[in-house]
Amino acid sequence: MFRNLKRFIIGKPLKTLEASDQALSKSKALALLSSDALSSVAYGTESITAVLLAGGAAALWLQLPIACLILVLLAAIVLSYRQIIHAYPNGGGAYTVASQNWGANVGLVAGGSLLVDYMLTVAVSASAAADAITAAIPSLLHFAVPMSIVIILILTSMNLRGLRESANFLMVPVYFFIVVMAVTVAYGVYQAATGAIPYHAAARIGTDFSGLSLIFFLRAFSSGSSSLTGVEAISNAVPNFKAPKEKHAASTLTMMAIILASFFFGITFLSYWDGIRPNASSTVLSQIASITYGGHGFGFYMVQLATTLILAVAANTGFSAFPVLAVNLAKDKYLPHLFMDRGDRLGYSNGILSLSIGAIILTVIFHGSTDNLIPLYAVGVFVPFTLSQSGMIIHWYRNRPKFWLGKATINFVGAFMSAALVLVLFFTRFSHVWPYVFIMPADLTVFFKIKKHYTAVSKQLRLQYLNNPKQKQEPYAGSTAIVLVSNLTQVTAEAINYAESVATKVIAMHVSFDIRPEKEAKIAAQFAENFPDVRYVDVHSSYRSIVKPIIGFVTKVSNQSKKTNHSVTVVIPQFVPKKSWQNILHNQSSLRLRTALSGLDNISISTYYYHLSE
Amino acid sequence: MFRNLKRFIIGKPLKTLEASDQALSKSKALALLSSDALSSVAYGTESITAVLLAGGAAALWLQLPIACLILVLLAAIVLSYRQIIHAYPNGGGAYTVASQNWGANVGLVAGGSLLVDYMLTVAVSASAAADAITAAIPSLLHFAVPMSIVIILILTSMNLRGLRESANFLMVPVYFFIVVMAVTVAYGVYQAATGAIPYHAAARIGTDFSGLSLIFFLRAFSSGSSSLTGVEAISNAVPNFKAPKEKHAASTLTMMAIILASFFFGITFLSYWDGIRPNASSTVLSQIASITYGGHGFGFYMVQLATTLILAVAANTGFSAFPVLAVNLAKDKYLPHLFMDRGDRLGYSNGILSLSIGAIILTVIFHGSTDNLIPLYAVGVFVPFTLSQSGMIIHWYRNRPKFWLGKATINFVGAFMSAALVLVLFFTRFSHVWPYVFIMPADLTVFFKIKKHYTAVSKQLRLQYLNNPKQKQEPYAGSTAIVLVSNLTQVTAEAINYAESVATKVIAMHVSFDIRPEKEAKIAAQFAENFPDVRYVDVHSSYRSIVKPIIGFVTKVSNQSKKTNHSVTVVIPQFVPKKSWQNILHNQSSLRLRTALSGLDNISISTYYYHLSE
Repeated sequence: MFRNLKRFIIGKPLKTLEASDQALSKSKALALLSSDALSSVAYGTESITAVLLAGGAAALWLQLPIACLILVLLAAIVLSYRQIIHAYPNGGGAYTVASQNWGANVGLVAGGSLLVDYMLTVAVSASAAADAITAAIPSLLHFAVPMSIVIILILTSMNLRGLRESANFLMVPVYFFIVVMAVTVAYGVYQAATGAIPYHAAARIGTDFSGLSLIFFLRAFSSGSSSLTGVEAISNAVPNFKAPKEKHAASTLTMMAIILASFFFGITFLSYWDGIRPNASSTVLSQIASITYGGHGFGFYMVQLATTLILAVAANTGFSAFPVLAVNLAKDKYLPHLFMDRGDRLGYSNGILSLSIGAIILTVIFHGSTDNLIPLYAVGVFVPFTLSQSGMIIHWYRNRPKFWLGKATINFVGAFMSAALVLVLFFTRFSHVWPYVFIMPADLTVFFKIKKHYTAVSKQLRLQYLNNPKQKQEPYAGSTAIVLVSNLTQVTAEAINYAESVATKVIAMHVSFDIRPEKEAKIAAQFAENFPDVRYVDVHSSYRSIVKPIIGFVTKVSNQSKKTNHSVTVVIPQFVPKKSWQNILHNQSSLRLRTALSGLDNISISTYYYHLSE
Repeated sequence: MFRNLKRFIIGKPLKTLEASDQALSKSKALALLSSDALSSVAYGTESITAVLLAGGAAALWLQLPIACLILVLLAAIVLSYRQIIHAYPNGGGAYTVASQNWGANVGLVAGGSLLVDYMLTVAVSASAAADAITAAIPSLLHFAVPMSIVIILILTSMNLRGLRESANFLMVPVYFFIVVMAVTVAYGVYQAATGAIPYHAAARIGTDFSGLSLIFFLRAFSSGSSSLTGVEAISNAVPNFKAPKEKHAASTLTMMAIILASFFFGITFLSYWDGIRPNASSTVLSQIASITYGGHGFGFYMVQLATTLILAVAANTGFSAFPVLAVNLAKDKYLPHLFMDRGDRLGYSNGILSLSIGAIILTVIFHGSTDNLIPLYAVGVFVPFTLSQSGMIIHWYRNRPKFWLGKATINFVGAFMSAALVLVLFFTRFSHVWPYVFIMPADLTVFFKIKKHYTAVSKQLRLQYLNNPKQKQEPYAGSTAIVLVSNLTQVTAEAINYAESVATKVIAMHVSFDIRPEKEAKIAAQFAENFPDVRYVDVHSSYRSIVKPIIGFVTKVSNQSKKTNHSVTVVIPQFVPKKSWQNILHNQSSLRLRTALSGLDNISISTYYYHLSE
């Protein structure tokens, strides 16, 4: 039944070699990987103006220079990531670049930041989408958190079904958003140019005002930087692209950056031109839509719908990026190997499920409140940005290709601005950013513990006699089997027959209890009559558990066998009912026994299965 | 850690022979087994007057004849159960008596009714106790259901610790209730006799009124019969008493019946004398207390506190009776054997836990509302009463001891009245009683399925050659071992060494995947070099699962081995990390494999454990 449910949700298994069919074309990749970045225009301009408004309406003109600065940062990041895509065609983004240039530990800081960040991406986007829905349908207000969780679950199942199908699904809302926003921005700018919408700015560019200071400017700038979250997704996912992977990935990145830049600057310009001030009941974007289309008509609702949909889809970026990053960390033995297993539909199911669980927990803990999470989210993004771009400077210096100084300069600008942003966020937003100080060391501790364990294991598993032929194990001189016997049944008889075929010495061991002495004597007598040549050992127990006496006896036999160089096998006779529900009707001590026995050295545990036919 | 938690909650394990120490003295048994019956005086009189009031205040005098009739029923039931205790000293109550006299199927109807009824006892009493607390502390009103669940959980852990300790705990509230009620009833009657409280009855005995009809009378009578629930608990628990068990149990039952009868009749008399009418805000009992003690003083609050406490304790009756009944059903193979297992503290832990879970589910489903559950509860009690008492008539007729006709007459009266009560409940309360019509067939179906399975299993497990020596299995001519190999490691090498000690023919089987052809070739070459005399079989898989190809190969080998009369062992090499959390870092396919392989015929599965030291 579980299998059928899984088939229904996930679809039928795919062969391993069908994997390449799942590779992404550019247009699908744009839909799948850019929604996070594009959707951030819904709140980027707004977060700048919200900070500026604290300095009075006269400060609002600053949004234009800040937007220009953010575009410079965007250009630096995009150029840098284009260079990364070509230099590291196997993906991995910030983690790979930082590891290979700065060293493994710095790479782990980048990787750890991003892992948590992708969970935040999913949680924040799903919550924002749910908020958008409840804003449209106020009666759903109390169901915001369950709705976020449903969105996450739908995305989880789509991703478990495989990338290609998800992309087909997701292309519609992303391209719908692109078309709607392009029309809105173009129509708005056209009306501004023709004077159809008059100049309404709160203050002319260059107006002086009392609160103007560097800190104030930086605070507004750092808030606006949230528009750039999600830009790194494409460079992490290069291996998912159709060949030639690097070329397709790089041009997808450029395309996305151009769209993002024009939307972001267009919206900020219109926000300045129309003199818009954000307030609690309506967003900057909805005010622009309202002014551009002259009220709450068809155009206005299209903008709201498109925003809602792309936020839901933005949550999907995490689902594309997280599993690939987890695979890279697992390959380097910093995360459990299970993240490298492909599921039935060739997705990295364990990564998808971990992300989903993490995002749901974050959503529940923060009750779907996005505002307080965004600064933390930005730190988590710009730390890896800084590390990967500074890493690229080292890369250029080491390889010194043509124009390496120019390339290094691009990366330096990006690294410098990203680092400055992180510092600004820590100084001006510490009350929201502090969890980073605890999450990062915890992440690193886990990574190092896992690495240490895998290294120790692989050392111990190496064939010892390859280095030292004297250590080659002697063949056993014989084998001892201990058959655990509770009653004399057909199962016991067959298990003893089996044990005699594999062992040179067979012992039948029975645990007897205080409460039924006559029965114990009868079993012993029956056994002696039927198996006169097998040694029957009765171990007495004052408690009800059979585990302790068995462990004690097996340990004794095992010590004796070392002297005679015998291998030791514990044979557990077990009958298998015809239907699995019937297992509840029978003693399940065999599992407990096996767990306890697996702690003993140099023991094999053999289960003899007897199948009931009725 | 789990072990320590368990020790803390349950206590250290007891030896099997310490069991007899846990037997009950009469005074402890009275506390442990009578709280259910005694606590029902808190609502018995009230449910009669509530029905009578529908016929007008003039009908209230009927509570006196109804109370007399209920006392006759109580006397018949108690005399009958005294006879049962002596006739069936091993306990089992209605289930045993009905099975042995009417036959197994009728016994199962009684047993099935009681199992569900004990869950209702726990749920109803815990809910009523929680209601009593919230009535005292209205701010807890929203936590009634969680509080009921906490009460059930506390009782569960006390019962897992063992009977004796529970009884010490529970004696205080039961004897407190007995003292408080005895004082209240005696003081109330004394004041009525001396005229300190004047005669206030709503109508004199014998007053005629318009709605007087047989149906009306029966409805009130059947409601009052809820006072008699819980009387059967003692006869089910005879084996828990100190020797001489029958004598102690019988006198405990009589003692309890006398206390119950005097409280019930005293309360009903005072209710009539004081002319009390039940209403939504105060119970009959609280009104009597208020009148007797002249307002809401010390006496009044003592009565309320005692009522609250005994209701909490009443829930414990189910915990004493359910596990013993489950053991009896399990001994007869109608319930899983696991109900016969004694836990660390010698309680029947599985019965205790099943009851606890069932009661919690009922509490949650019915939001702790007791009123609608009581008619169903009464049917569940009086069906087994009817069956056991009519069974006793058969018993007397079969054995014909001295005075058997008199004894049979007592049982006939009890059986007739119980049966009449069930019919009345079905006719006048069908809207609350209908679930019984579905629960009972479902119970019986489960019982019969389990019985059929156990019978089939024991037939199949019987040594076949005892009846037919020709069927004695031939000894195996040799043994084949298949070692599953993923990589060439120290574990693999030792597992093959082990396999060579137990098998005459060793095959190493490897599953290869499409994605890494070079690696596959390398493993094969390494293997051939290191184990030139072991056959290495490479099975190719187009999917990621190793289970299917392994099943296919093992089936093939197993079929070949039948011809050569070899036993077949599948050896799974597995390394055991030093700490158990490290298991998550390694592939857990061995468990899945073992489950899949256990479906094959004539296969033993042997796990070779290699212990890592770091």
